[in-house]
Amino acid sequence: MKVGILTGGGDCPGLNAVIRAAVRKGCFHYEDEFVGFLEGWRGVMEDKAVPLDLSVVAGILPRGGTILRTSRTNPAKKPNGLEQCIATLKKNGIDALIAIGGDDTLTVASKLYGKGFNVVGVPKTIDNDLAGTDYTFGFDTAVNVVMEAIDRVHTTAEAHNRVMVVEVMGRDAGWIAIHSGIAGGADVILIPEKPFDIDEVADTIRQRHSRGRYFSIVVVAEGAKFSPSSSGDGSAVSMDGDKDEFGHARLGGIGNILAKELEKRTGFETRTVVLGHIQRGGTPTAFDRVLATRYGLGAIDMVHRGEFGRMAALRGNKIISIPLQEAISKNRTVDQEMMDVASGILEKLNDEKLVNK
Amino acid sequence: MKVGILTGGGDCPGLNAVIRAAVRKGCFHYEDEFVGFLEGWRGVMEDKAVPLDLSVVAGILPRGGTILRTSRTNPAKKPNGLEQCIATLKKNGIDALIAIGGDDTLTVASKLYGKGFNVVGVPKTIDNDLAGTDYTFGFDTAVNVVMEAIDRVHTTAEAHNRVMVVEVMGRDAGWIAIHSGIAGGADVILIPEKPFDIDEVADTIRQRHSRGRYFSIVVVAEGAKFSPSSSGDGSAVSMDGDKDEFGHARLGGIGNILAKELEKRTGFETRTVVLGHIQRGGTPTAFDRVLATRYGLGAIDMVHRGEFGRMAALRGNKIISIPLQEAISKNRTVDQEMMDVASGILEKLNDEKLVNK
Amino acid sequence: MKVGILTGGGDCPGLNAVIRAAVRKGCFHYEDEFVGFLEGWRGVMEDKAVPLDLSVVAGILPRGGTILRTSRTNPAKKPNGLEQCIATLKKNGIDALIAIGGDDTLTVASKLYGKGFNVVGVPKTIDNDLAGTDYTFGFDTAVNVVMEAIDRVHTTAEAHNRVMVVEVMGRDAGWIAIHSGIAGGADVILIPEKPFDIDEVADTIRQRHSRGRYFSIVVVAEGAKFSPSSSGDGSAVSMDGDKDEFGHARLGGIGNILAKELEKRTGFETRTVVLGHIQRGGTPTAFDRVLATRYGLGAIDMVHRGEFGRMAALRGNKIISIPLQEAISKNRTVDQEMMDVASGILEKLNDEKLVNK
Amino acid sequence: MKVGILTGGGDCPGLNAVIRAAVRKGCFHYEDEFVGFLEGWRGVMEDKAVPLDLSVVAGILPRGGTILRTSRTNPAKKPNGLEQCIATLKKNGIDALIAIGGDDTLTVASKLYGKGFNVVGVPKTIDNDLAGTDYTFGFDTAVNVVMEAIDRVHTTAEAHNRVMVVEVMGRDAGWIAIHSGIAGGADVILIPEKPFDIDEVADTIRQRHSRGRYFSIVVVAEGAKFSPSSSGDGSAVSMDGDKDEFGHARLGGIGNILAKELEKRTGFETRTVVLGHIQRGGTPTAFDRVLATRYGLGAIDMVHRGEFGRMAALRGNKIISIPLQEAISKNRTVDQEMMDVASGILEKLNDEKLVNK
Repeated sequence: MKVGILTGGGDCPGLNAVIRAAVRKGCFHYEDEFVGFLEGWRGVMEDKAVPLDLSVVAGILPRGGTILRTSRTNPAKKPNGLEQCIATLKKNGIDALIAIGGDDTLTVASKLYGKGFNVVGVPKTIDNDLAGTDYTFGFDTAVNVVMEAIDRVHTTAEAHNRVMVVEVMGRDAGWIAIHSGIAGGADVILIPEKPFDIDEVADTIRQRHSRGRYFSIVVVAEGAKFSPSSSGDGSAVSMDGDKDEFGHARLGGIGNILAKELEKRTGFETRTVVLGHIQRGGTPTAFDRVLATRYGLGAIDMVHRGEFGRMAALRGNKIISIPLQEAISKNRTVDQEMMDVASGILEKLNDEKLVNK
Repeated sequence: MKVGILTGGGDCPGLNAVIRAAVRKGCFHYEDEFVGFLEGWRGVMEDKAVPLDLSVVAGILPRGGTILRTSRTNPAKKPNGLEQCIATLKKNGIDALIAIGGDDTLTVASKLYGKGFNVVGVPKTIDNDLAGTDYTFGFDTAVNVVMEAIDRVHTTAEAHNRVMVVEVMGRDAGWIAIHSGIAGGADVILIPEKPFDIDEVADTIRQRHSRGRYFSIVVVAEGAKFSPSSSGDGSAVSMDGDKDEFGHARLGGIGNILAKELEKRTGFETRTVVLGHIQRGGTPTAFDRVLATRYGLGAIDMVHRGEFGRMAALRGNKIISIPLQEAISKNRTVDQEMMDVASGILEKLNDEKLVNK
Repeated sequence: MKVGILTGGGDCPGLNAVIRAAVRKGCFHYEDEFVGFLEGWRGVMEDKAVPLDLSVVAGILPRGGTILRTSRTNPAKKPNGLEQCIATLKKNGIDALIAIGGDDTLTVASKLYGKGFNVVGVPKTIDNDLAGTDYTFGFDTAVNVVMEAIDRVHTTAEAHNRVMVVEVMGRDAGWIAIHSGIAGGADVILIPEKPFDIDEVADTIRQRHSRGRYFSIVVVAEGAKFSPSSSGDGSAVSMDGDKDEFGHARLGGIGNILAKELEKRTGFETRTVVLGHIQRGGTPTAFDRVLATRYGLGAIDMVHRGEFGRMAALRGNKIISIPLQEAISKNRTVDQEMMDVASGILEKLNDEKLVNK
Repeated sequence: MKVGILTGGGDCPGLNAVIRAAVRKGCFHYEDEFVGFLEGWRGVMEDKAVPLDLSVVAGILPRGGTILRTSRTNPAKKPNGLEQCIATLKKNGIDALIAIGGDDTLTVASKLYGKGFNVVGVPKTIDNDLAGTDYTFGFDTAVNVVMEAIDRVHTTAEAHNRVMVVEVMGRDAGWIAIHSGIAGGADVILIPEKPFDIDEVADTIRQRHSRGRYFSIVVVAEGAKFSPSSSGDGSAVSMDGDKDEFGHARLGGIGNILAKELEKRTGFETRTVVLGHIQRGGTPTAFDRVLATRYGLGAIDMVHRGEFGRMAALRGNKIISIPLQEAISKNRTVDQEMMDVASGILEKLNDEKLVNK
């Protein structure tokens, strides 16, 4: 078969591993031929096609980014966009298309499938918040990057008796914040799923200091929010930071606001680190390379089993396929298990022990 | 409650995270008191007890090794060893003991439980081969260490047109080899579960060269074996390398033997790297820190739920408890899913394409 | 002798290595006794003294931060501050004091020496901009942290056809920017020593794109400035960002301003990463651990040679001592050698080749 | 001009950075044209030439190994080998050749220059032992790889009360051993320059244990030797390990022998780690990337200044040129400065304090 591949949306460690795995298994086991479309759906619309073979994918496993590049171009939002895509795919003799991307990319994939084209999806979200799959590749890498940053920041916090606020990715779900916060030994972890009371956060930090720990690490997801019950100061603060195209805060709205409010309330010197783009680049971890490889193998197998209009997904330790619709319909937020881990390991606020309250 | 903790067997990244999590939750949520026994069961036999509190476990999360140190002392093999243990535990007023270790450590734990003492087990094996649990902490760190080594070795292999054999841990199970081999883009992966035909390995490498890839990476678990059907040379070679106390080959028996046999058969320059002890030391990955934290929380919860004679285990994304007996009864070898991933991503041997055969 | 040690100013990888080296050589070779003063000069003013011996410094070599903690307290700015210091030092029976820090810390050291106390200085500045010494510890670590961040950001830039602006430390000198920029393969490097013309920067990026490289990496030191000759937009922009106590920009004034101006001028999507505090924390590189060890050994040797009022300094491959006055009198900015390296490796602007100008 | 480039001898992190720097400055500043010869001198003898331009060198800076590959082929040892080289160079219209390599590669370069060809050398030795230059690229990377391995091994040593012997590269000079040993906090460092007395090493370890440190780290260069004064056991042991083509021990002769002798003498459990090939592969550190870049720039400048028969060298912070003869005539061994650092930081043997002697 002649198979097309594209990568859409934000870049993510592991994209190259998916491409490589699909091409290798396709060449070694199925005698497929491959074509890459550059820059996501833009490449399909504008017929930017490049040949993909074993030599092109050689050596790309450890590399971050995507050799096919990516974009946010959405054919469904252009007049005749989807028709143009189908025309390009036909012109290139493509029998099936593997679309690797997040919600937007997979929504287009689903629509093309609705128009009768053979499409298979591979989920990609560094935030790990896609419904229908246990883990997405890139997430473990992001968590490790954040953890290493927290390890570094720890020494500064300790040396200076400081509160350090580390702002991480996670607009709608706190997966990165909760995993990296636990891994990095954070003292407070704030996630979008649970609006927080700024006074309670300040109390937790004060309690820590009152028992002789003169520094604290706060990990905050960019989408974390003050609870309505927060005191005047907190709720009054504007939360609209500068956002990038994926809705990720660029200037670290919440991190900086939080730092100011905490310094005001506790009197402890407080600093912010906004990790930003370094969370999504670079070489993938072993976990992500294996997982992305499995997604790539799963996708080419789906092509040959004719499982179109579906997406590869990880359930337990198996790669299965689920309808694209199911995946793109809703977000997956932090589950009760991880909430319990966080509340188990974090210091429990105990009013009686509080000195300064 | 007054809770004892010990770590036994080989060291493993994440041990400190388990200790820290149990102590933190015990202190913050249950008002427990903790005692650490030094050097595994030796510390219980010889009453080497140290107090464990929040300040002792502060800052240990990112550290490899174990603050309680470890040993292979086995009280069950000493006269009155178990009785001595119980005496020490009673003398220290211990209500329950958390034993973190592998088969040997947990077997003693099970026997102590048989004698009526309240014991909870936490599984530890860097090889990930313990029955009853999906993942053990330390494994992900080992896989990443090996993967980084393969990444480094890759550049040498490429620059010199060489075959590089990388020998990794795995006496009875090939988990580390198969995960790190896939993550590192190895061309051949040899595991204990599947005895290999040396001529087939040589053919695979020759085939790669014949299609223009002038180097190859072979990952071999220390416990991998030649198949009986292997040609005379291979099967004649003695496989008894120098072993350390955990049965891990120290001088890299299989790696060096394999390299010589491959060089003889293919004519390609072949070199070996034996990773050895660097696989089990150092700071844990985020995955292992979170997993170890979960095991520690699970263990202290088990203590308070009175689930003794049992071991914490990971199933899917939940920590459950299973009888110690179940865990120590058998090894968990590489499953069909990972076998399929390996055979999917690796070059398929195709006789017709072989030039030199 | 009884020797005091303190660390002042911003934290820096290698501080613990200095402390450890001085204590080890003092104990093994000179039979010294040591006292640590906590939180820089504050600890001397307020008599926060802790004993320092071989067991206290065991295991601290790989750790970032400083076990003695640090502060910016300046006794010279408090009434009777210096007298109070001398009183504490005498009370503790201190024969000589090793002060590890930057300009401020060493200025106090120099004043104490002026009042007759035996003080030896060890220079500390992550920015590598101290006159009188070739390299300061911490700098190599910071450069490697930035380089790794650039490596990560590279993949994002490539995948998205983007311009990425990476803002790094360097208020008065561009050492970190120029070293990490060259190591990371940046396309433009902007340092405080050379005010830049925003239009020229935009031209360089356009030229790169016109020869088919669709992404660019710009490294900018926080202290870099628009040249007066820059076009209206640039020079009109306020450069006053939010500063931390060391004058380092916190919200990344220049990085974000630059990104906006470049996007406006080139039309290419541009993003900013502000690395901030992760540049100064974490485990030191081998270079910094060796260098810091040498400074520590040098300092204790100076104490025993009676070279007071002086500072250890690296010249070529020797540790020498120079008067404290000499070191704190002026900044060391990027030298001609490194300027030449940068202009040698960076793309030379060639008007004729420019398509869009 | 038309410039040829080749890389010879063992691979080394930074080779690609040299190639890239020469090509970039040549293209941007001199309008040169470049040809790469594959696999060192073999490529010149057999006319394996590939075009080198800006697009070929794009993205290679962070990669270990060498895009031109390498070999040990020595034309001076083949009949008419040098003549054949000159014939190829003329056929390809090469005006000048940049040869990057160690002693062997540069000796050929020198001979070709003797025959009238325009050759410029760039020194390459991971061991840092080339006369005439302060630092060679690749060395800093190797030292950091070893240091990270020691950091990992540390936790195992501590957890198990063990002596760990880490064998590192360094046949004739102990630069890697002494730098990584100091950076890793080793307790004993053994280098080729100073034959060691095995009983003294055992005493040092015993002394450490007698003051309560129950583990030790020994770093040994592969070329380290027992002193003739060593007791019978030591000197009787055969030191001939298995060597690779560069004379580096493959099976870790000295490391394993040392471990056995130490275990015998001290009674402490002792283990060996032989780091081998991972020391020379992988992405270069910032220091090596900058240094390699400087060598590349220096080489192309030398070509245009007509400084042939000479080699680029680092002196202080300047790249200068020296006659090839001077460089290849002798080895550079560990200097007094570093010897002093080691003896300053290492535990001083004090007989009176020894308990078990």
